[in-house]
Amino acid sequence: MSKNKKVNAAILIIGNEILSGRTQDTNTTTIAVWLNSIGVKVNEVRVIPDIENTIIETVNHLRKVNDYVFTTGGIGPTHDDITAQSISKAFNLKYEIHKEAFKILESYYKPGEFNEGRQKMVWMPENANLILNPTSGAPGFNVENVFCLPGVPSILKSMLGELKNRIVGGDPILSHTISLRTVESEIANSLTNVQEDNKDVEIGSYPFFQAGKLGVSIVIRSEDQLKIDKCSLEILKFINQKKISIVDK
Amino acid sequence: MSKNKKVNAAILIIGNEILSGRTQDTNTTTIAVWLNSIGVKVNEVRVIPDIENTIIETVNHLRKVNDYVFTTGGIGPTHDDITAQSISKAFNLKYEIHKEAFKILESYYKPGEFNEGRQKMVWMPENANLILNPTSGAPGFNVENVFCLPGVPSILKSMLGELKNRIVGGDPILSHTISLRTVESEIANSLTNVQEDNKDVEIGSYPFFQAGKLGVSIVIRSEDQLKIDKCSLEILKFINQKKISIVDK
Repeated sequence: MSKNKKVNAAILIIGNEILSGRTQDTNTTTIAVWLNSIGVKVNEVRVIPDIENTIIETVNHLRKVNDYVFTTGGIGPTHDDITAQSISKAFNLKYEIHKEAFKILESYYKPGEFNEGRQKMVWMPENANLILNPTSGAPGFNVENVFCLPGVPSILKSMLGELKNRIVGGDPILSHTISLRTVESEIANSLTNVQEDNKDVEIGSYPFFQAGKLGVSIVIRSEDQLKIDKCSLEILKFINQKKISIVDK
Repeated sequence: MSKNKKVNAAILIIGNEILSGRTQDTNTTTIAVWLNSIGVKVNEVRVIPDIENTIIETVNHLRKVNDYVFTTGGIGPTHDDITAQSISKAFNLKYEIHKEAFKILESYYKPGEFNEGRQKMVWMPENANLILNPTSGAPGFNVENVFCLPGVPSILKSMLGELKNRIVGGDPILSHTISLRTVESEIANSLTNVQEDNKDVEIGSYPFFQAGKLGVSIVIRSEDQLKIDKCSLEILKFINQKKISIVDK
């Protein structure tokens, strides 16, 4: 049943507050975990400032070299929210009032509350497809392979569900983790041999501290469960020889 | 006393584990906050996989368009740690045993413990300058304007102190935050006017939820305290007119 197709994506985090260190980005993790679950691999993440030309150039590069691009941030009502106008320019589309989005927000707010600030949020590239927002009304949108989501993590999370049917993934990326009571240098050479023996499987090695003790998690990733299993067996073999214990993590 | 010079940097996070969503990056925030404090502005962050050509091309681009580049990750003992060899190739330098690093680790470990896996960590671009590691021995390094740090957050943090005298910043980037009990759409137009009136000051608007209530933080950033003060006054004026209250956050 393998679709035998690799599908990849880039994530573009737009916002000065991430670059200044004021705000800790968590949207990358949220989007990446979700994409993995539907068979899309994240090739690259970029964080860029709220500068129109930078957004335009970056989007135009990323959308050409990735199957999908997901942007976060810059679609709110204030002056520093310039994602929609920048995407319009990137695609050479009119930046205009989106009638469906207007209707949604008009009925979302109480009479008289759909003020000029809020109306800014319905300006989008012409013919953009809306991404509905069950949390706070204002929709995101997509143009071709570029999907524009908000920066507030809870709102972003609530919008991913609706996107599922619009993203066509490849084979899901499977992973298996083996956590060990050891340090990396004890297993480095053996692990190198396993990687050389299994070139099309991605093997990562990640040290951790847990309850005051050092450990290493080995993460094996592939679209093919059989390849993961073969790799795991080879790792278990050298662990056994070295008398290294496996730990829960 | 203004040095009147803008100094900028890029942060390059190297590691499949960030792209897969397995690991939440926090190094960006750590480095960005520290750089801000010494007058260096982060222009861009990229997260890329453990792929040699990708590392080489990205480093060679970023180091030309930024005063400084900080990489994290990929300098440990395992097969997926390929930052040092990639940086060597990016600069067209030999990848070789760094004698000083060898001595440091030889005396750091107990006799017999400085094994082949650990010895991989002293392979570096020729003539690299070491960045000492007070936490776990293995040094980072820098070549020209590229500074290579480890991925483990606690170790990375412990190494920044030593770097301070090697990074020449510009004027420190100052900021002032005003947090309000309001929503963005209520202040969007007034804030746009203040931004237009103060074009060389960066004004950000960030919604928050706190104790079940909505609020907005306005962040004003500039190298010039007088400009921040002028901007703050204009904001306080419209807040006052609109009867919006200031909150602690």
